[in-house]
Amino acid sequence: MAQAPKHLKIGVFLAGTGHHVASWRHPHAQTNGSMNLAYFQQLAKTAERGKLDMLFLADSLSISPDSHPNVLARFEPFTLLTALAAVTSKIGLAATASTTYSEPFHIARQFASLDHLSNGRAAWNVVTSSIESTALNFSGEKHPEHSLRYQRAEEFVEVVKGLWDSWEDDALIRHQESGVFFDPAKLHELQHHGEFFSVRGPLNVARPPQGHPVIIQAGSSEPGQHLAARTAEVIFTAQNNLPDAQAFYQSVKTKVVSYGRSPDEVSIMPGIFPILGDTEEAAEAKFQELQELILPSVGLKILSSYLGGFDLTPYPLDGPLPDIDIPETNAVKSRFELVLNLARREKLTIRQLYQYIAGSRGHHIFVGTPAQLASKMEEWVLQGGCDGFNLMPPLLPEGLDVFVDQVVPLLQQHGLFRTEYEGNTLREHLGLQRPANRYMSQQNVSI
Amino acid sequence: MAQAPKHLKIGVFLAGTGHHVASWRHPHAQTNGSMNLAYFQQLAKTAERGKLDMLFLADSLSISPDSHPNVLARFEPFTLLTALAAVTSKIGLAATASTTYSEPFHIARQFASLDHLSNGRAAWNVVTSSIESTALNFSGEKHPEHSLRYQRAEEFVEVVKGLWDSWEDDALIRHQESGVFFDPAKLHELQHHGEFFSVRGPLNVARPPQGHPVIIQAGSSEPGQHLAARTAEVIFTAQNNLPDAQAFYQSVKTKVVSYGRSPDEVSIMPGIFPILGDTEEAAEAKFQELQELILPSVGLKILSSYLGGFDLTPYPLDGPLPDIDIPETNAVKSRFELVLNLARREKLTIRQLYQYIAGSRGHHIFVGTPAQLASKMEEWVLQGGCDGFNLMPPLLPEGLDVFVDQVVPLLQQHGLFRTEYEGNTLREHLGLQRPANRYMSQQNVSI
Repeated sequence: MAQAPKHLKIGVFLAGTGHHVASWRHPHAQTNGSMNLAYFQQLAKTAERGKLDMLFLADSLSISPDSHPNVLARFEPFTLLTALAAVTSKIGLAATASTTYSEPFHIARQFASLDHLSNGRAAWNVVTSSIESTALNFSGEKHPEHSLRYQRAEEFVEVVKGLWDSWEDDALIRHQESGVFFDPAKLHELQHHGEFFSVRGPLNVARPPQGHPVIIQAGSSEPGQHLAARTAEVIFTAQNNLPDAQAFYQSVKTKVVSYGRSPDEVSIMPGIFPILGDTEEAAEAKFQELQELILPSVGLKILSSYLGGFDLTPYPLDGPLPDIDIPETNAVKSRFELVLNLARREKLTIRQLYQYIAGSRGHHIFVGTPAQLASKMEEWVLQGGCDGFNLMPPLLPEGLDVFVDQVVPLLQQHGLFRTEYEGNTLREHLGLQRPANRYMSQQNVSI
Repeated sequence: MAQAPKHLKIGVFLAGTGHHVASWRHPHAQTNGSMNLAYFQQLAKTAERGKLDMLFLADSLSISPDSHPNVLARFEPFTLLTALAAVTSKIGLAATASTTYSEPFHIARQFASLDHLSNGRAAWNVVTSSIESTALNFSGEKHPEHSLRYQRAEEFVEVVKGLWDSWEDDALIRHQESGVFFDPAKLHELQHHGEFFSVRGPLNVARPPQGHPVIIQAGSSEPGQHLAARTAEVIFTAQNNLPDAQAFYQSVKTKVVSYGRSPDEVSIMPGIFPILGDTEEAAEAKFQELQELILPSVGLKILSSYLGGFDLTPYPLDGPLPDIDIPETNAVKSRFELVLNLARREKLTIRQLYQYIAGSRGHHIFVGTPAQLASKMEEWVLQGGCDGFNLMPPLLPEGLDVFVDQVVPLLQQHGLFRTEYEGNTLREHLGLQRPANRYMSQQNVSI
């Protein structure tokens, strides 16, 4: 019997006016998108009409005047996702929340509450705060260094999962006649005493409908990959070509298995930045239209950040990159070399170079027709490059509309994507088991 | 010209099955109310149908097996209020959030986001965490003592208000042609460096529609009254009779004036626990019905907590209170004496005593008809006892339904309550000014 073809997982990363750095200047952009609830509601409904697995919100805890317009002023993720839960009924709702400047009790509670309010659609993108200035908003003298942030993150996730198990699924009896509201044997204190946290519990929210909201991570560094392989159920990653994607896929799935998990327990979803047109030429023209909206001041600032802060303002935009020495000790040396080599190899002007770099900020750009994109997605999934994609439409709402109206039907025709949601929870969409309560399992073992 | 009669402010304190300790055992209770979104949505719609100023959610950050069923497992307030914002359009949405175990940046952001998502309906009930065991959920060795918690609270509120002013109201220009997204002169770092917090800012949310969400406090202690008089716009309090209420009202309004504020900038809203029936007898019977649902084990535990932990289980429920020595050093000595004197004066049995104490947990009980309640509310407001009330229906949803259907129309007929919302924001309902941005005022001064 032929095996059913593998279904793609598709998420959409919602970001204000879209993921292109100049999207807000496009005539079709909703310029106040980042703070416009009706607009986000419309995006969420479109994504659900396309039967997408989930929508995703990034987050940050500090800004500077140079921050991208999408992040300068925006809604807080838990409140926005709850508002989007109210106008949808199936699509998963994923929020980024940092483990560096919050407490496990608060985060456990917010995701548990969101999972209840959305009937089992919450997911947590676990991150550490990598921007040093964030410490300045949290009374911190000094930002914790990378490996310490990861250790803290790992313990944080363990505490949160433990708190989600505070109440067994059938602990709340609410028996009026006897006056027994809950079964005390099914309410558990966590009594966690670790290196970073001491948390007694129990959590004051019933066990989430999904048992545990879905855990997402985006660690591409070696400690990040290990953390993800041990604890994540979805992995976001940036992969620019199929061989690299295959290598990453193989590396992570091998690590997943080495931690005693099934490879199917983790979906790997690279970001994709699709620019679609009815013809390749139309798509290319659309891309150029966006690229030309990048203000030189913005483009130069981003390019300069790739070149160790080298000041490019004195040089003509349409001339070549000047000679720049690569400092031996620079922390971003490999990225530095990559940019210099690219400029020389392709003989790019400064303007061309910043357009190339600033447009997608390193994400996988796809320029072509809906049919070409559907084929590419199929190729990547069938050839072991990924389990699905995290869409990063350069311009919203139009990039999502076109994807849902023109790419999804093709994927459905090829048998690669659902035509209707099979279940109600995000775990069901992703084919993930609902985790058993840790305390219940202990009881079963002891019987 | 005759002055328009003063309008009452009315909030409703939503709590699971209702505020009576045994409400969940009543046949009309929604036993899973604390975790039932549809139920809360219905309550919110009823309150809005009654043109109430706001609905209010309490909060706590720790539970024990002895906690009240309403608080054992419930939604987190920010997510629940956002879900209620989605099904209402006028009523204010007030959440309790503690200053003891959170960070000003997170709290500023959550309320700002809620205020945007609800179009200007958010209010923050500022509390300090008084339960010592809460520290055990937040890696805290020792709970901070009372005066330190208040100092921290005061600085916390100042930081939050400062963060809300990060963006001036017209800072976000979003001018596509010029590429100017915001006016840099209207984005401000807070640069707060205080005793408890260092917070640079700016906040990554646009200025809230209300400028600042409304600030609520419930401090009845002397430092609490001062803090409230300096910073609060609504004060919740427990007052059991008109003379006490008048004294409190006078004391707080005097303090408000002493801090250079107008007395109208603060609404004082005592809690009221109304048990309503078509006749006094019917109301009394309803009260008895609830009182008799108090389990002896629950009633004894609560009564015992008023008597320094004295174990009453060996004594017959329908007999008198045994002789108990009042320890000289007991911290709750005055409450202790009050209970003993009550028992002796009224010759109450142990059962009668715990019913008296446990039923409303010290709140102002009103038992009578809707017309009697309307008269009482009118009397308190017109005689300087309060500006309005925070309703604490003993049993939900029925206590709120009866209030909205039978008491509100009487207040409206007496010209004491609105027949339609005059404005859209909570500040408008409460007659409060929208605060000017602190940075804008500075500019005005310097011109």
